[in-house]
Amino acid sequence: MPTISSRGHQMPASPIRKLTPFADQAKKDGKKIYHLNIGQPDIKTPAGMLQAIRDIDFDVWAYTPSEGTSTYRNKLVEYYNKLAYNITANQILVTNGGSEAISIAMQACLNPGDEIIIPEPFYANYNGFACPADVVIRPIMSHIEDGFALPSIAAFEKVINDKTKAIVICNPNNPTGYLYSREELEALKALCLKYDLYLFADEAYREFCYDGKEFISPMHLEGLENHVVIFDTVSKRYSACGARLGCLITKNAELYQVALKFAQARLSPPAVAQIAATAAVDTPQSYFDEVLEEYTERRDVLVAGLNALPGVFCPNPGGAFYVVARFPIDNSDKFCQWMLESFEYENETVMMAPAAGFYSSSDAGKNEVRLAYVLHTDELKKALVCLEKALAAYPGRTTTSA
Amino acid sequence: MPTISSRGHQMPASPIRKLTPFADQAKKDGKKIYHLNIGQPDIKTPAGMLQAIRDIDFDVWAYTPSEGTSTYRNKLVEYYNKLAYNITANQILVTNGGSEAISIAMQACLNPGDEIIIPEPFYANYNGFACPADVVIRPIMSHIEDGFALPSIAAFEKVINDKTKAIVICNPNNPTGYLYSREELEALKALCLKYDLYLFADEAYREFCYDGKEFISPMHLEGLENHVVIFDTVSKRYSACGARLGCLITKNAELYQVALKFAQARLSPPAVAQIAATAAVDTPQSYFDEVLEEYTERRDVLVAGLNALPGVFCPNPGGAFYVVARFPIDNSDKFCQWMLESFEYENETVMMAPAAGFYSSSDAGKNEVRLAYVLHTDELKKALVCLEKALAAYPGRTTTSA
Ligand SMILES: Cc1ncc(COP(=O)(O)O)c(C=O)c1O
Ligand SMILES: Cc1ncc(COP(=O)(O)O)c(C=O)c1O
Repeated sequence: MPTISSRGHQMPASPIRKLTPFADQAKKDGKKIYHLNIGQPDIKTPAGMLQAIRDIDFDVWAYTPSEGTSTYRNKLVEYYNKLAYNITANQILVTNGGSEAISIAMQACLNPGDEIIIPEPFYANYNGFACPADVVIRPIMSHIEDGFALPSIAAFEKVINDKTKAIVICNPNNPTGYLYSREELEALKALCLKYDLYLFADEAYREFCYDGKEFISPMHLEGLENHVVIFDTVSKRYSACGARLGCLITKNAELYQVALKFAQARLSPPAVAQIAATAAVDTPQSYFDEVLEEYTERRDVLVAGLNALPGVFCPNPGGAFYVVARFPIDNSDKFCQWMLESFEYENETVMMAPAAGFYSSSDAGKNEVRLAYVLHTDELKKALVCLEKALAAYPGRTTTSA
Repeated sequence: MPTISSRGHQMPASPIRKLTPFADQAKKDGKKIYHLNIGQPDIKTPAGMLQAIRDIDFDVWAYTPSEGTSTYRNKLVEYYNKLAYNITANQILVTNGGSEAISIAMQACLNPGDEIIIPEPFYANYNGFACPADVVIRPIMSHIEDGFALPSIAAFEKVINDKTKAIVICNPNNPTGYLYSREELEALKALCLKYDLYLFADEAYREFCYDGKEFISPMHLEGLENHVVIFDTVSKRYSACGARLGCLITKNAELYQVALKFAQARLSPPAVAQIAATAAVDTPQSYFDEVLEEYTERRDVLVAGLNALPGVFCPNPGGAFYVVARFPIDNSDKFCQWMLESFEYENETVMMAPAAGFYSSSDAGKNEVRLAYVLHTDELKKALVCLEKALAAYPGRTTTSA
């Protein structure tokens, strides 16, 4: 029997999926599960976007250009330039989800063995893109005490070496919800210029910024044009995760041409998704206002509810729809599994993502969990009651949340 | 300015696209171009497949499971088991086009530096998947004289070494149209078992077999279950290239689990495409009969027409919708460019793909071109007239087609 490759063996299994068998069993046992474990929003896709799918009028479902249709890219220019990105259509490469933008950038910018610095906890699938590209992720710790703000520039400089080629930020952050400030981005700009590093900014959650806080993109920073690569996606913006449509944006013309070669090998991004996403750019502002209001309410309920539980600490994040909370427990892997396997309150339980999966340093995040507020507030309130009972009953409870 | 990666520099540009600027100029000059250069069929997508798009009835355009929906995979089982593949849904991994199946297999099966043997000429984008995976393609020559039949087993054995991990066949073949026989597949089976190699079979053109010839898949060969990986796609089968939906099939359970980890990192294949492709499995046989009749006619017109031109030789292929023909010319790169730049007959010209781009050995295929018969026969006939005039006028014409 032929062997599997080393990278195949090393490829990380999704940390979120480890619990799936226990959830399946719990469901079989008739338990109701509050799913706070994944980033699949329950928010409706904009009606105009879905209508565009129903209105397709082609006879031949053909390839589009590898970089995306010019109709779609021109429409995206409209969207981005309202955000003052000041870009042109030939700086946008349309991809199979934001996911593909990340893997193309890693391939195009980094050599095997090169290093990329990412504040942890971070989106776990970055590991799954780094592994095939043979890119080494150097995590630097962000801390729950300051709400997972950007680590100090000194902390970055400590790990920068000859192999360092890029810094990745996810803004607003998955899993922490942290929204980076203009000062933090300016500090990153200085750092990237000093060491000539790429700045990869994953802006999947750009649309979700709360409390009137300003969203700042590296696209807003002058003098960093050749260093910045943006990863974007329609998945969360329009609750259109199944569209599989994202893009890579860069003003670095040489990099764009190289990224395009990777895109040409796989021929084309999806055609219907591009038609729908073109229509989606005209989604009325009222849609986003409502969604933002809904998420703000959910966040407020969840964060207040969590902090009211004895021994629990949860920062109040400025964006995205996740929080990372600290629980008074020995081990969140065990706790999350226990909640599915051995716990129920009125035949209900809660599914969450143990935070260890978002850290790359071993032993980090052991008493933290990520919760996605992708349920209505009345459901969230019931989930919080359930969680309170669980924390009281859990055998691995610690007295302090150290 | 940060640097581009070495693999980024090495990444091959698509050989077909090199001529695009000349074609654009020719169009600007008002020339009509017969496009025989690309594999974008003009055939209509099945009505039922398009209707399924218009009938979508979800509110939230959500992710599907990374391996594809069970509805779609179960429907695919129906399709494949009619072809006697004898597979189950958990041996099918749904991908972003056949393209992604190829790149996942390379990543999962081969280590950097490992080698893969491919009869040349071959589908040029295999280079674009091998490059990021750091996989070395070892070409072995197939010959126009015998219609590009499988090279001898001795030719394979000559290049097999410790690094060899897989053989790739594309059946029916792009670019040659060659359809492998049962004997050829049996010979490959013996070879793969002897050296414990994977057999990757790209069956993008399975539906297109002419003259009542039998299509044989490695899936039909007993005892090779752990070695075979099939790459499939709906792109050509249903003229649905823009769906971006393919799959990887393997009965090797360990490999499947590893391939799944790569698929989980990028989350999900496209959702609407899966709904449409589920409906497409019920496309009436009459659709395929008509398409096959149309292509057979086109092939007959093209092959006869080419062979009637002085100094031209074109084998009569058993499948797909391409031919590779030998022309009495010095250099097909130059010739194809000249036809766009400097030639016109009644203000028309023909665009073709120089065959050198499908060979990896340097200097091979210099007097060959690939023609895709993706136009109606009346158009093909006009293109042939144009080509005849061009060959007569071309300054780099050679007396014999050596
Ligand atoms: C931070 C982040 N980046 C990228 C992605 C990839 O999204 P997609 O491939 O659906 O565009 C996700 C999805 O959850 C995400 O959370
Ligand atoms: C031989 C072969 N394999 C694979 C593909 C990839 O097709 P897709 O990614 O559209 O499924 C093509 C497309 O032309 C092809 O010709």
